[in-house]
Amino acid sequence: MARRESAAAGPGSRALVVDLIRSSGPISRVELVKATGLTQPTISNIVRRLLDDGVVRETGDTVATGGKPRTLLVINSRSAYGVGIRVGADTLTCVVTDTRGGTIGRELIAVSPAEDVVTQLSDLYLHVTGGLGLAPQSVAGLAVVAPGPVDVARGRFLALPGFGHLDLRRALSARLGVPVLVDGDAAAAAVGEFWGRQVSRDRTFGCLYMNSGIGSGVVLDGALHRGASSNAGEIGHVSVVREGDPCRCGNRGCLELYAAPAALVSRARTITGLADRLGIRADDPDARAFDVLARAAIYGDDQARVLVDESAALLADGALTLANLWDLDTLVLAGPGFAVAGSLYVSEIRRRLGERAVSRRIHAVQVDLSSNPRDSAAIGGAALVLQGSVAPGHGPQVAVPQT
Amino acid sequence: MARRESAAAGPGSRALVVDLIRSSGPISRVELVKATGLTQPTISNIVRRLLDDGVVRETGDTVATGGKPRTLLVINSRSAYGVGIRVGADTLTCVVTDTRGGTIGRELIAVSPAEDVVTQLSDLYLHVTGGLGLAPQSVAGLAVVAPGPVDVARGRFLALPGFGHLDLRRALSARLGVPVLVDGDAAAAAVGEFWGRQVSRDRTFGCLYMNSGIGSGVVLDGALHRGASSNAGEIGHVSVVREGDPCRCGNRGCLELYAAPAALVSRARTITGLADRLGIRADDPDARAFDVLARAAIYGDDQARVLVDESAALLADGALTLANLWDLDTLVLAGPGFAVAGSLYVSEIRRRLGERAVSRRIHAVQVDLSSNPRDSAAIGGAALVLQGSVAPGHGPQVAVPQT
Repeated sequence: MARRESAAAGPGSRALVVDLIRSSGPISRVELVKATGLTQPTISNIVRRLLDDGVVRETGDTVATGGKPRTLLVINSRSAYGVGIRVGADTLTCVVTDTRGGTIGRELIAVSPAEDVVTQLSDLYLHVTGGLGLAPQSVAGLAVVAPGPVDVARGRFLALPGFGHLDLRRALSARLGVPVLVDGDAAAAAVGEFWGRQVSRDRTFGCLYMNSGIGSGVVLDGALHRGASSNAGEIGHVSVVREGDPCRCGNRGCLELYAAPAALVSRARTITGLADRLGIRADDPDARAFDVLARAAIYGDDQARVLVDESAALLADGALTLANLWDLDTLVLAGPGFAVAGSLYVSEIRRRLGERAVSRRIHAVQVDLSSNPRDSAAIGGAALVLQGSVAPGHGPQVAVPQT
Repeated sequence: MARRESAAAGPGSRALVVDLIRSSGPISRVELVKATGLTQPTISNIVRRLLDDGVVRETGDTVATGGKPRTLLVINSRSAYGVGIRVGADTLTCVVTDTRGGTIGRELIAVSPAEDVVTQLSDLYLHVTGGLGLAPQSVAGLAVVAPGPVDVARGRFLALPGFGHLDLRRALSARLGVPVLVDGDAAAAAVGEFWGRQVSRDRTFGCLYMNSGIGSGVVLDGALHRGASSNAGEIGHVSVVREGDPCRCGNRGCLELYAAPAALVSRARTITGLADRLGIRADDPDARAFDVLARAAIYGDDQARVLVDESAALLADGALTLANLWDLDTLVLAGPGFAVAGSLYVSEIRRRLGERAVSRRIHAVQVDLSSNPRDSAAIGGAALVLQGSVAPGHGPQVAVPQT
């Protein structure tokens, strides 16, 4: 059944055609006409420009169909590279991907609170791209992704301390001379998982993301749902305790106040002897302490397991809300928060959706764990850069270098 | 900023072009090319077929643009009619709309529990279309809308007692000889409000719907979001009381168990003297009793007001969840549940979103009350029929008459 009553060809058609060649290639122009519903002349024009720009290439193979043999098209995977940097609570993760979505470089560094953030991000970008020996003109751009809310138009992360009034997009593009975009980490992760898995475009694809906070993203008809301001998917700020603790977002009793790593770690620290027994030091950052706690839960520590199970139960309610509001058929768990104990979360969420999803008598919801939960947001950022670069003006605004 | 990275022209393009002519007409072919991003030959082909089918007509006026004068197109509003019937707890509401979305007929009848539902629906359809003297071939079809979950593919309402195993779609199309579709009432209401208000396609448009239950629908890029099985938007089954009362949906503590009319009425009946004072009789159906209660709240009855305020506070949390997950910029309240005390709900929801929406520092969410809350679902059903008829195979499946 068609999931939408209508659709239009925009300049975004170029991104669509690239996506299809990437996910379904080698593919012929005739197959692209069928798959997109675009007219044959439109496809011919788009493909001609993609060949001129070196984004796609002809394999040289043809398919005999009785009629005129069809030339097959594939992505020219080395034509451009996207760089994505995820800003975590105390780390920066940088990845470089090619136009097929393959990761060709990765680097993780600690944030030094003393140093200027623009300098740290620029140095990391230059270090990684330089180390790979990438020709500057082959880099499509840089995406910086971090927890929302994000003011994409002004290039600002509103939730990051010290980032509030900084136009990171312009500052970095001026410094580096490449297009830069900023976006939410959960939205980027959804794009990263969608690209990486080569999910069919007709799936209603959701991604539940947990790092220091909890968010989500949904991909509809192969495109990220952005909403009015690229701040969709804020499942972490659904109230799970009526008029509960006040949250930085302005709401009360938010899911992430009770289920995110920081909440579990602070609860663990109140349980006499638990932190010592697990080797959680007083000065450990939440992310590291949570990994220790999650590992203990996996290895059968009862007190650690109780805390993780409570978090999983709350996230299962959140996943149920996502499934019921979007009528998902696919949900992927991604983000550093799922890196260690993801299997415990997956099984609890599968159980909850199987028992309680409104649509369960009509279809199942497939729930999977990301194969690379720590990197999906950075990889998705790189994917967004490449999408933007192959369809100028589409996707999130990309700052033109000021140099 | 583009809200989606890519879009494609499908057969749905025909529905899109009709939507644009309906909402923006009189409009020229050149303007349609600009608005849709479709190629000029594609637009010419679609418009030629629409003219042949009598769906659109040329005004006879032209716009001089220096170059070749442009002929203007408008909808031929009498070319086809859509019929929508909303199945309520104890009533059936039937509306007939033309292709411009104007309502040309309406009838409300009580459901007689004794009588066969297919007979009641067929008789109502024949009575209303006959009364308007519509030529059978001018009726595009019938949409029956009711509370979800709905199995659109099998033509079944899973939530309606006695409807569970009936393929209403095939039964009615065989009886009436017109295309029939079934859909959720909240989803239909969203389409009805979107059509009726001629909302700009770039809005992220949500509709919060309350009848006996609570649901919602979202329109993106001018098209209803259906999700995997047309069961998206189930905000009434978000848990607001952890492990609270069991709900028919399989979840516990669902919003609609605490905030919907039936909940308020049963609470009102437990308050000594309140029902008598307001004139709520023991045998009054919930819908009628709720209207009495809501009217008393509006006119300042303190006990009634407390109950409605509690319901409004819960719905405000639900509206906040919708705004945060979809990043809405527009939300309309529709459905019989808002017909009397809608103003109380609107002001509470406006306040909550203004104080707590994650995106509030980036943009406001406009919250409006439907101008015709009792009919939006039936009107939307008629709109869905017309959309389906102008783009065969798109939108919800439409049963081909068996006669």
